[in-house]
Amino acid sequence: MIDERSVGLVKPQFLTFAEDEPMQLESGATLGPVTIAYETYGRLNAERSNAILIVHALSGSAHAGGYHNPDDRKPGWWDECIGPGKAFDTDRYFVICSNVLGGCYGSTGPSSINPTTGKPYGLGFPVVTIGDMVHAQIKLIDHLGIDQLLCIAGGSMGGMQVLEWAAHHPQRVKATIPLATTAQHSPMLIAFSEVGRQAIYADPNWNNGDYYGQSVKPDAGLAVARMVGHITYLSEESMQQKFGRKLRNLERYGYEFETEFEVESYLKYNGNSFTRRFDANSYLYITKAMDYFDLTQPTGSLAAAFANSTAVKFLIVSFTSDWLYPSYHSKRLVSALTAAGADVTYLDIKSSWGHDAFLLEVDTMTKLIDSFLSRLAREENIAAPPVETSAVNDDDAAETPLAAQAGAAM
Amino acid sequence: MIDERSVGLVKPQFLTFAEDEPMQLESGATLGPVTIAYETYGRLNAERSNAILIVHALSGSAHAGGYHNPDDRKPGWWDECIGPGKAFDTDRYFVICSNVLGGCYGSTGPSSINPTTGKPYGLGFPVVTIGDMVHAQIKLIDHLGIDQLLCIAGGSMGGMQVLEWAAHHPQRVKATIPLATTAQHSPMLIAFSEVGRQAIYADPNWNNGDYYGQSVKPDAGLAVARMVGHITYLSEESMQQKFGRKLRNLERYGYEFETEFEVESYLKYNGNSFTRRFDANSYLYITKAMDYFDLTQPTGSLAAAFANSTAVKFLIVSFTSDWLYPSYHSKRLVSALTAAGADVTYLDIKSSWGHDAFLLEVDTMTKLIDSFLSRLAREENIAAPPVETSAVNDDDAAETPLAAQAGAAM
Repeated sequence: MIDERSVGLVKPQFLTFAEDEPMQLESGATLGPVTIAYETYGRLNAERSNAILIVHALSGSAHAGGYHNPDDRKPGWWDECIGPGKAFDTDRYFVICSNVLGGCYGSTGPSSINPTTGKPYGLGFPVVTIGDMVHAQIKLIDHLGIDQLLCIAGGSMGGMQVLEWAAHHPQRVKATIPLATTAQHSPMLIAFSEVGRQAIYADPNWNNGDYYGQSVKPDAGLAVARMVGHITYLSEESMQQKFGRKLRNLERYGYEFETEFEVESYLKYNGNSFTRRFDANSYLYITKAMDYFDLTQPTGSLAAAFANSTAVKFLIVSFTSDWLYPSYHSKRLVSALTAAGADVTYLDIKSSWGHDAFLLEVDTMTKLIDSFLSRLAREENIAAPPVETSAVNDDDAAETPLAAQAGAAM
Repeated sequence: MIDERSVGLVKPQFLTFAEDEPMQLESGATLGPVTIAYETYGRLNAERSNAILIVHALSGSAHAGGYHNPDDRKPGWWDECIGPGKAFDTDRYFVICSNVLGGCYGSTGPSSINPTTGKPYGLGFPVVTIGDMVHAQIKLIDHLGIDQLLCIAGGSMGGMQVLEWAAHHPQRVKATIPLATTAQHSPMLIAFSEVGRQAIYADPNWNNGDYYGQSVKPDAGLAVARMVGHITYLSEESMQQKFGRKLRNLERYGYEFETEFEVESYLKYNGNSFTRRFDANSYLYITKAMDYFDLTQPTGSLAAAFANSTAVKFLIVSFTSDWLYPSYHSKRLVSALTAAGADVTYLDIKSSWGHDAFLLEVDTMTKLIDSFLSRLAREENIAAPPVETSAVNDDDAAETPLAAQAGAAM
């Protein structure tokens, strides 16, 4: 059931590179070939100056907007903010989203085939960093013929990628929107990552990462990891509002170890359904990449990290009830950027939704992002893309009336 | 190495009841016989009016003060606050601590032998509540010949027991000290409990609770549960201070899935060592008891719960960085008690230690508790216990110069 305000039907696309010469990773290891799954929405303008890269969080994918099939129950993960007239207005901007390196939604990761062995990498996959993920995104942007992105936006781990672009590739981007994030993964974040990993290691079906093609996967461990994660994405207040102490299908306590409270049911449902859509090894690799993220290194100064980023504009947003990435992380970032001389707009938005607020506070985010991007487009004289007057010469065009494919748009 | 300011060598004691007629539980189930492990420190006065009951949190035991053996590396869990001249001054008060029903430190719990089968209960053990734990404590207090306790004190789940006493047995206690606790387990607390339980269920060695006498126990699952717990007992700030992003025995990232950060090492150590001292089934039962705790029921009004508690004095303490039992839980309790007309002293102590603060802020807690108890003893004309002038007629007296046994004291 396709929402008319969405970008409509979209198709995943794939870029493969590092086939001849492997990709150099921050660890010193190499990887190749590398495939990056991506989607695009809207059209590039003639100057190729209206491109916005959306970067996803831990469990996200390249499927940020629209629908893959007419009968999909849900659109892409950030569909509420991507589409005609939405925060990332596809009538004005060319929006790109790719799956991170190490992921399990089409980009090369531990579940991909290791060309050396002909079998899935498993733990043979090299540890990747947020920097490596961004390097892969640069390959994609190069491939799309874009010299400089108008903007990069993302929350949580997406925000880390945004900051990595701003700090290390400032010439490739005009503006950035890091949401509910940090420039340095805190020990509490590392602790929650590690608990999730330990839950996976503890599952005998994990089998040291070698479970592909087996009849059983480490579902139980991955579900526990996801349940822990889900708690951290909410706030005490939002859990009170959402669940309270309500029992599920019960009048009174059962005095047994079945699921009784609504909140238990929510966690169990989300934990179990996650195992049907995510790879346990990818969970290990992606959380590790987050734990390693620390823009204060190697100098110890966050301001130094952004010394060359003074031309980049920042819209930084934190949320008052986000205890996983507390507002002070964003405030430190604002101080460092201000010290470095960057153009920073910062908002600490009052919300009860905890870390999830960056996805849930749609009205507020739409107004904020729209006004930030409109100012940017005005200041930078960004032309609108050509109005599509006829069907694109593409086999799939009939199926994709609203969402032009990157190939068609370029 | 016995600290001279401790109560010295102490011995666990055991009370067994419900041998003929089983104990009636809140669930409607019955249980018998029931054994409660306990320890006592100091001496009862002639009027039996100087007794203080200490109640423990999730993983605690009856061993709150002193040492079991001269070469014990650590004293009891609240030794810093129990002893001559300490917060709970054993020169003035007779201090009692018992292991909760359902526990695994000597009191009847799922690892105890089910007299019907001759085997450990496992999941055959009935689900118990905070109310049931308190009923067992009442049996103990009766056994010790104490009509009315001077005070009951405890933090976290201990605080729930304190509040249960105050609400449902107000005639048995003059004053209570609930620390870092709540009158109603929140959905976030239930969520963390459930994640811990799911980690245990996910361990195949749990075997539906039937693992006693097996060569393997659900250690991996219990360790994950404990790791989650440990994160919640700290604060983001205390983790920054304690661990930061320090690496353990490494100069730089290892780019592998070994323990690298100090905080990972801390969690892993504590998770693993917990499995050597705690029973996974007890973890299930005790967290379930906490989840069921809700003094607003059955009327929906917390003030109504304390309608008969107006003669009880309260010292309520919360800690600013405790996000597991946030201060507003204590503030709600204060409002309800004030509405009910009780005598309440409340402090929200500024601390960076998170939930653990109730055990770590020793100087502050000592001053607070000492002044609260001194006022109480003065107002209630509580006589000091007799000075011990000669060795008690007890085989162990030579070994226990400072800590009189309950039998000797009565």
